[in-house]
Amino acid sequence: MYNIADVVRLTGGKLIGDFQGTISGFSPLNEATQGSISFYGNNKYLKDFEETKASVVLVDAETVVPPSYQGSTIVVDNVYLTVSKILDMLNPGLDWDEGIAESAMIADSATIGKSASVGHLTIVNKRSTIGSGTQVGDQVYIGIDCEIGKNCILYPGVRILDRSKIGDNVIIHANTVVGADGFGFAPDAEGNLKKVAQVGKVIIEDNVEIGANCAIDRGSLKDTIIRQGVKLDNLIQVAHNVEIGSHTVIAAQTGIAGSTTIGDQCMIGGQVGIVGHLNIAPKTSIQAQSGMIKSVKEENTQWYGYPAIPYKNYLRSYAQFKNLDDLSKRVRELEQKLDKKK
Amino acid sequence: MYNIADVVRLTGGKLIGDFQGTISGFSPLNEATQGSISFYGNNKYLKDFEETKASVVLVDAETVVPPSYQGSTIVVDNVYLTVSKILDMLNPGLDWDEGIAESAMIADSATIGKSASVGHLTIVNKRSTIGSGTQVGDQVYIGIDCEIGKNCILYPGVRILDRSKIGDNVIIHANTVVGADGFGFAPDAEGNLKKVAQVGKVIIEDNVEIGANCAIDRGSLKDTIIRQGVKLDNLIQVAHNVEIGSHTVIAAQTGIAGSTTIGDQCMIGGQVGIVGHLNIAPKTSIQAQSGMIKSVKEENTQWYGYPAIPYKNYLRSYAQFKNLDDLSKRVRELEQKLDKKK
Amino acid sequence: MYNIADVVRLTGGKLIGDFQGTISGFSPLNEATQGSISFYGNNKYLKDFEETKASVVLVDAETVVPPSYQGSTIVVDNVYLTVSKILDMLNPGLDWDEGIAESAMIADSATIGKSASVGHLTIVNKRSTIGSGTQVGDQVYIGIDCEIGKNCILYPGVRILDRSKIGDNVIIHANTVVGADGFGFAPDAEGNLKKVAQVGKVIIEDNVEIGANCAIDRGSLKDTIIRQGVKLDNLIQVAHNVEIGSHTVIAAQTGIAGSTTIGDQCMIGGQVGIVGHLNIAPKTSIQAQSGMIKSVKEENTQWYGYPAIPYKNYLRSYAQFKNLDDLSKRVRELEQKLDKKK
Repeated sequence: MYNIADVVRLTGGKLIGDFQGTISGFSPLNEATQGSISFYGNNKYLKDFEETKASVVLVDAETVVPPSYQGSTIVVDNVYLTVSKILDMLNPGLDWDEGIAESAMIADSATIGKSASVGHLTIVNKRSTIGSGTQVGDQVYIGIDCEIGKNCILYPGVRILDRSKIGDNVIIHANTVVGADGFGFAPDAEGNLKKVAQVGKVIIEDNVEIGANCAIDRGSLKDTIIRQGVKLDNLIQVAHNVEIGSHTVIAAQTGIAGSTTIGDQCMIGGQVGIVGHLNIAPKTSIQAQSGMIKSVKEENTQWYGYPAIPYKNYLRSYAQFKNLDDLSKRVRELEQKLDKKK
Repeated sequence: MYNIADVVRLTGGKLIGDFQGTISGFSPLNEATQGSISFYGNNKYLKDFEETKASVVLVDAETVVPPSYQGSTIVVDNVYLTVSKILDMLNPGLDWDEGIAESAMIADSATIGKSASVGHLTIVNKRSTIGSGTQVGDQVYIGIDCEIGKNCILYPGVRILDRSKIGDNVIIHANTVVGADGFGFAPDAEGNLKKVAQVGKVIIEDNVEIGANCAIDRGSLKDTIIRQGVKLDNLIQVAHNVEIGSHTVIAAQTGIAGSTTIGDQCMIGGQVGIVGHLNIAPKTSIQAQSGMIKSVKEENTQWYGYPAIPYKNYLRSYAQFKNLDDLSKRVRELEQKLDKKK
Repeated sequence: MYNIADVVRLTGGKLIGDFQGTISGFSPLNEATQGSISFYGNNKYLKDFEETKASVVLVDAETVVPPSYQGSTIVVDNVYLTVSKILDMLNPGLDWDEGIAESAMIADSATIGKSASVGHLTIVNKRSTIGSGTQVGDQVYIGIDCEIGKNCILYPGVRILDRSKIGDNVIIHANTVVGADGFGFAPDAEGNLKKVAQVGKVIIEDNVEIGANCAIDRGSLKDTIIRQGVKLDNLIQVAHNVEIGSHTVIAAQTGIAGSTTIGDQCMIGGQVGIVGHLNIAPKTSIQAQSGMIKSVKEENTQWYGYPAIPYKNYLRSYAQFKNLDDLSKRVRELEQKLDKKK
């Protein structure tokens, strides 16, 4: 399939071993067959490395190759970045129709950029603009007065509601909703809940990627803002007025309540809940399923728990929690001993 | 933009201070510029109040205005209700096309009410009815034998499956699914899971609002019922046979398992899980991320934890949990001291 | 409506009591009226059984009928399986149009099996195949090179992205996304996150049912695989490279992170989080909202907690957690007593 010399050149690494000829495929260690190339970048897969049938394995300089592995290696600077390069090569990419589909419904006042494509049964409403090179998939909805930048990809079923602004190189996966009303109600004089109009919008900056089936609500008065380079996984909830700082990464099913600000370069696990009106400092790391109920002022801290406390504290407390029944018994014994001594 | 006298009249409040002329805009305290109006209704924003550039701030009678604030105030009964009034004034509202779109596919036996609108590429199936004044957005699906009341709004991508009944003034946000099959399987003689037909339906009463990307399942035998005035945020799961009482408010990503009944006027936080076959009394308050595993009989109680226990108990226990490592050490010390005394 | 003799025959059970004539309806115990049949299969409903107005109740041989109940019973082997049979009889089923809708957009190179139907405004892309008897609903999207087996049902708004393979008898509920890109990024030399191409696909085997608004991501290099008979509830996240073993059942809003393998016949509650790169043994049972952070090697174990520990251990520890404030006070008292003794 690929000549080993070409692969080595692509990776920028150094071949150790005597493999020659062509590579037949690229697979994880436990699925690799003879003649194929694999990679090792996480010690959870050491056993797979020991038992792999791969003929070539990408490793980094620190890797200790298991004695049982008899094949060749390519030593690279960064295994995952190299894997990424190979995947780029293997990626079939999108093969969507070019141009504007006949069945797309585009308002007269909408503007579609040069070399942009608009899919079948997609709707682009009044005064919305789509930047050049952007691929809007099939069955997408773009509301009124939206701005979509250049070289974006909007997958089928995405709904971009009125007045949303989306930057360049943004990818939004299928069935995600951008710009639904925030969740705002105020009790009236009779105590009935009255809807509070949500007049803000959603702003998504450049190089953001948003997963499938997410909900990014518009702001109530100010805007909901997702800064450049943010990566959101699937099924994430971003409430009104939230701001997510540049290059922050958030795993699936996390929810951020209204008016909370998340700093730059945070790492937030899956199923995390962050209550409203907080400020989370840059580079904060939050363990999966944690519940943040207080602001974080210091940068570069780790959090865990429900509600979240510093990561190490939670681990320490939870280690004791597991033996709490035992601890309780020991306290009772102490009480009994002390009683006897009286 | 707006004359201050008009704004004071709209709010029904009393102007304190010497501001005159026109208001240039309406913004949160930290974003307000000179000449604009803002509001203060949550003491988390006291610092913003102290530093705001707003010229007029809405406050209530109890507010202590910070000495550093030199502008005017308007004293109102309820700050958030007043903000809501102003937002209503600022709200551009929906500007969807009137009438029935040419590309909409409406069954001959379906009935569309007077002044109702049906969007582009929307499907309305056999014998379904849509009440007058209702706005069905683009790319919506309405199944067979559905009833949609008056003055509803269904956003793009909403799927209303067969036999669902929806009252008046109901708002359903984009990509929400109403009436998918409940999750029911029974092991057959060979132990294989056999699908249990879900023959109930979904009933949504008047004045309900449902967020984006929610899933409200149809009943198995009885119906799934959402009573009047209920407000559901985004990405919420409502399983088969659930009943949610009037005016209950549920935050994003909460899930309610099958056959559970929630009382009226409950306040349920985000990411809460409620197991099946429970009865939750009216006015129950459940903290975000809690797991309810038992019914609540008494009204007006607060719950927190995993599994949930009374709110204050959880706070008390968790305060100790944070120092559990220390407590464990102290028990060990006691044991050692007592050993020495022997 | 139905003759009692026919109903008894359908259930394969034995009538105890003197009920004769026709059954007027089938309802839960607390909603049943005179002349109707109901069922009792969960002791949470004993009070409903005591007070029911039903004339006939399905029970199993172990059921102790409450003395207050004066009606007849039908004794069956498995109450829920019998209910399932009756529901099948009552099920109106789908009444979708047959054949290929005129508004469906089907690529020339796509293949639609005999007696398959394709709904209105549905898109089937290049080289995709749809098996005979499969019903593809309205407004569905099927990407390029997809294979959909026989007798499947795809509900409105489902998005099947490129290269997905789906077996026979698969049901996928509305607005679920199959085959979105996995969540993979690698920092480049400048520390910016670079998207890692996701070149794997999703494979769904026979007899799988997937709820509404789920997200099943394609693999990065290998495939994401959902084995035969798996049942997924709504709003579930399945990340790239995950494999879910045969007949495993997962409740709503659970998330499984990348490259984790779940064994056969596991029972996983709602809102569970399972971190990446784990192996969960067959028949593992995980309580709702638990967080799995370690692999499970032994079959047939139960887990609970955050992070999850063995089920009974969690219950024991949590029982003490509820009294942690008290335990802390007792330790303080011990310390004081011991201090005095010095």
